Amino acid sequence: MTPIEDLYAIVPAGGAGTRLWPLSRRSRPKFLLDLLGSGRTLLQGTLDRLLPLTGAERVVVVTGAVHAGAVVDQLPELGADQVLAEPSPRDSMAAIGLAAAILRERHGDVLVASFAADHVVPEVEGFHAAVRHAAVAARAGYVATIGITPTAPSTAFGYVHAGAPLAPEEGGPVARVVAQFVEKPDAETAAEYLARGDVAWNAGMFVARTDVLLGHLERLQPPLAAGLAEIARAWETPSRQEVLERVWPTLTRIAIDHAIAEPVAATGGVAVVPGSFTWDDVGDWASLAELLPAGDDGTRLALGAGTEAPAVVTVDSPGALVSTAGGVGVAVAVVGVPDAVVVLTPDALLVTDAAHAQQVKAAVDVLKARGRDDLT
Amino acid sequence: MTPIEDLYAIVPAGGAGTRLWPLSRRSRPKFLLDLLGSGRTLLQGTLDRLLPLTGAERVVVVTGAVHAGAVVDQLPELGADQVLAEPSPRDSMAAIGLAAAILRERHGDVLVASFAADHVVPEVEGFHAAVRHAAVAARAGYVATIGITPTAPSTAFGYVHAGAPLAPEEGGPVARVVAQFVEKPDAETAAEYLARGDVAWNAGMFVARTDVLLGHLERLQPPLAAGLAEIARAWETPSRQEVLERVWPTLTRIAIDHAIAEPVAATGGVAVVPGSFTWDDVGDWASLAELLPAGDDGTRLALGAGTEAPAVVTVDSPGALVSTAGGVGVAVAVVGVPDAVVVLTPDALLVTDAAHAQQVKAAVDVLKARGRDDLT
Repeated sequence: MTPIEDLYAIVPAGGAGTRLWPLSRRSRPKFLLDLLGSGRTLLQGTLDRLLPLTGAERVVVVTGAVHAGAVVDQLPELGADQVLAEPSPRDSMAAIGLAAAILRERHGDVLVASFAADHVVPEVEGFHAAVRHAAVAARAGYVATIGITPTAPSTAFGYVHAGAPLAPEEGGPVARVVAQFVEKPDAETAAEYLARGDVAWNAGMFVARTDVLLGHLERLQPPLAAGLAEIARAWETPSRQEVLERVWPTLTRIAIDHAIAEPVAATGGVAVVPGSFTWDDVGDWASLAELLPAGDDGTRLALGAGTEAPAVVTVDSPGALVSTAGGVGVAVAVVGVPDAVVVLTPDALLVTDAAHAQQVKAAVDVLKARGRDDLT
Repeated sequence: MTPIEDLYAIVPAGGAGTRLWPLSRRSRPKFLLDLLGSGRTLLQGTLDRLLPLTGAERVVVVTGAVHAGAVVDQLPELGADQVLAEPSPRDSMAAIGLAAAILRERHGDVLVASFAADHVVPEVEGFHAAVRHAAVAARAGYVATIGITPTAPSTAFGYVHAGAPLAPEEGGPVARVVAQFVEKPDAETAAEYLARGDVAWNAGMFVARTDVLLGHLERLQPPLAAGLAEIARAWETPSRQEVLERVWPTLTRIAIDHAIAEPVAATGGVAVVPGSFTWDDVGDWASLAELLPAGDDGTRLALGAGTEAPAVVTVDSPGALVSTAGGVGVAVAVVGVPDAVVVLTPDALLVTDAAHAQQVKAAVDVLKARGRDDLT
C-alpha cells in the first residue's frame, strides 16, 4: 500500500496500566508488554500498524525518560532522535504538543496523527482506511478524529457525537463535523448511544496539521504552547537539557481532549470519520479476556510470547482468564469461579473476576499505602 | 490429670487429604501438615491431646511405609516399635485391627481407642472427659464411640443415633446404646437431625477392649481377623517381613464403620457418649477457613508455622482464605471474590471459593489423568 506522504505519527507511550497489575507495573508499563501473546508488545504492535502509513522514519514516540531505553530496545527501526524523552509525565497535551512542535521545527508544517502506544487494533485495513479519511479532513483544516463504531454499550469509553457531513472536498460525506464529545456514560445512556448510530467511541486518535493543532493550542493554552515552543526550539541545540529542566515542570497538565478536542469541537473545528474496525484500549483484565482466544474448555491464557503453557485446570469456571507470565512451572487450578481472573507473577498474585476488574486499582492503592512500592 | 491406666491409643495416619490440594499431596498428606499454623502438625496435635490420657508409651501410630520416617521424625516421643508401617493402604479396619492385634500380642487384652491423625479438637478437656466416659462403656463390653454434638446441619459427616441409656455400671445414663449409624445426609435431613438432640456426628472415634473388638472381627470378617492375627504373631519375630508381604495384600479392604460399628450396632453392641467439644475433620478448605481466626478485614491466612505473613490485600472479598505456605514473598490481592480460597505453593496454585471446596478433588483428578503425578 501507498504511505500517506505528508503524515507523521506521534505515539505517546505513557501510563502504567494499573488495572493490569500485577503484570503491568510503573517500571514495566502496559505498552511494553506482549499482553496478547502475539510475539509483539502493544508498543511494537502500534508501530507495526503505523509503518504502512508513514514508514519508520516518520514516527516519533514520546515517553518517560525512565522508559526511553526500553522503547529504543523494542523499536530498533527508529533512530535515537525519534524517541522523545519526557523528564516527567505532564499528561497527553504536553506529550503530543512537544512532538508536534519538534516535528514542525524539523520539517516545517506537516500532518501529524497521534495514536496511543497501548491500544489494540487487530484489523489494520479498516484502521488504515480511517486514517486516510481523517487525513483528508485534517488537510482541510479540521482536527480530525476516528470514532469507533460501538459494538457494545460500553461504559468504559468516552463517546463522540457526529453532526453534519463535511463538504466532499473536506472528506465528506464520510467525515462529519463533531457535535460534541461526552465522558463515559452510565449503562442506560450507553445503550441509547449504541442504538443511535451517530455516536461513536472516542479512541483518542487525532489527526491534524501542525499549524492547526499548535494554533489551537496557542489560542486556548497560551503558556503551554509557549513552553512547548521554547523546548522545541532548543531540542536540537546544546541547551536542550537546560531548557527542558527549567520549562517542562512548569507546563500545564491537561489531556488533549480537554485542551483541544472539546473546545474546538464546540466551535465546529473537529471532524470525525467512522472506524468500523475492532479496537480496544485493554483497560483491564476483563477487556483483555475478551481479546484472547478461548481454549476447548473456555479458558483463556495470557502468557506472553514464548512462554510455555502451564498446566491449567478449570472446573465449573467458564470464561476464566489465567496469566502465568513469569510464573512458568506453577500449575493452576480454578474451581467454581466463573469469569475468574488469575494472574501470577514471580512476586505477586491477583485473583479477581471480570466484573471486578476495574477494582484492581484499589488493591494496588492499598499496597502503595503500605509502602510496598516494590510491588506497584 | 490422671491417665486412663488400661487404655492404649491407636492413631491411624492415612489418607492424602486430596481436597486440601495443593498444600496436601500424596507425598505430604494432610496429617503431616500444620494447617492451623499452631506450630504443631495435625498428627502432633493428635498426640498432644492423647498424652494426658495414655502417656507416650501407650500410643501406636499406623501409617503407610512411605510415611513412617516422617511420622517418627514428627513424634520423637514415640519409640520405633510404636510406629507400625503398612506396606500399602488397606482401609481403616486393617490398620486399626493390626494395631489392636499387635497390642494384644504385646500386652494381653487391653482397652484400645482409635483416633484419626488428621482431625482437629481445639478443646481438649471435653475430649478427655468423653474418652473417660467411653472407656467405662468399653470396659463393660461395648464398642464405644463418641458422638459429637452437632453445631450445624452438616452434610459432610455421617451421624449416629442414640437409643436408650446404658445401666449406671456400664456408663449410663451418659452413655447410650447406639440405635443406628447413618451416612452423610442431605441438607433437609441434616437440619432435622440438628433439631432432634439424639443424633450426633460420627467422628470415627472408637474405644473397645481388644477381646471385644477382635472378637467381633473374628465373627464378622473371619479371613481379615485371621490374616491380622497371623501378622501380629510374626510382628516381633524375624519372619515379620515375609508374613507381611505374603498376607497384607490379601486382607479385606473395609472401613471399621462397615466392618464393625454398623453390624455390631444392629445387635445393640455399640454405645455412644456425647462429645460437646469442638471437632472438625478439616475435610476441605472451607472447613479449614472456619477454624482459622479472621484478620481485621475478615481475611484468614493459612501459613504454616514460622512462615512470615505475606502482603495480602483483599477488596470486597469477605471471608477470603489465603494460604501461601511455601510461597513466601509473593504478594496476594483478592478483589471481589467473597469466600475466596487462594492457595499458592511453589509448584501449584488453587483458586476456588468456600462453596466449591469439595470440587477441588475434580481438579486433582484432571491433573492425574494428564499424567501429572508430580503435582498430586
